[in-house]
Amino acid sequence: MENFKNIAQAMQFLPDKMKKNGLFETERLFCDLYCFEPGQTQAVHAHEGSDKIYFVVNGKALVQIGDSEKELGQNQIALAASGQRHGVKNPGPERLMLLVFMAPKPSH
Amino acid sequence: MENFKNIAQAMQFLPDKMKKNGLFETERLFCDLYCFEPGQTQAVHAHEGSDKIYFVVNGKALVQIGDSEKELGQNQIALAASGQRHGVKNPGPERLMLLVFMAPKPSH
Repeated sequence: MENFKNIAQAMQFLPDKMKKNGLFETERLFCDLYCFEPGQTQAVHAHEGSDKIYFVVNGKALVQIGDSEKELGQNQIALAASGQRHGVKNPGPERLMLLVFMAPKPSH
Repeated sequence: MENFKNIAQAMQFLPDKMKKNGLFETERLFCDLYCFEPGQTQAVHAHEGSDKIYFVVNGKALVQIGDSEKELGQNQIALAASGQRHGVKNPGPERLMLLVFMAPKPSH
């Protein structure tokens, strides 16, 4: 198991959709770096039994959780608890890098 | 439940020891902002059944995990899996802000 990572090395974008880049995964907790070009989205969804935290490393994120929507900038953080609908859009103009922590990883 | 936070608002340091500032907590996942003045430490410890991730927001962190020790800078990240001994020191000269994610919160 690798214990140390530099997120710059995990950074990868795709032209057609946001890219999930894996950093760590255990049976209890996983961590991905999500990379969004301007305009790219993660569709609104929900999962029962798993909680998720988003942390903005760079850029802006328009984050919807439940009925609330907020634009987050660098060093802002959001929790989507089990069952809460959530999604993300990069409003641009910068690229968005988002750390995502989830416990536990949903099975679907 | 508050879904959105700015970590700058949670930032608090103590002169005599590192300060843990709570951000989010659920039964599966919790997230703290740890603030270290230069020279302050989190003593090496371990917990069975919980995994922890450290992410450096600002400053430098000398992180020990198992038998490995590494100096992490901004945007570097580390995993201490269940049972792995881990600890942190701020080698200075800057203040260290570290995001800590743990699943689940240990009972002790």
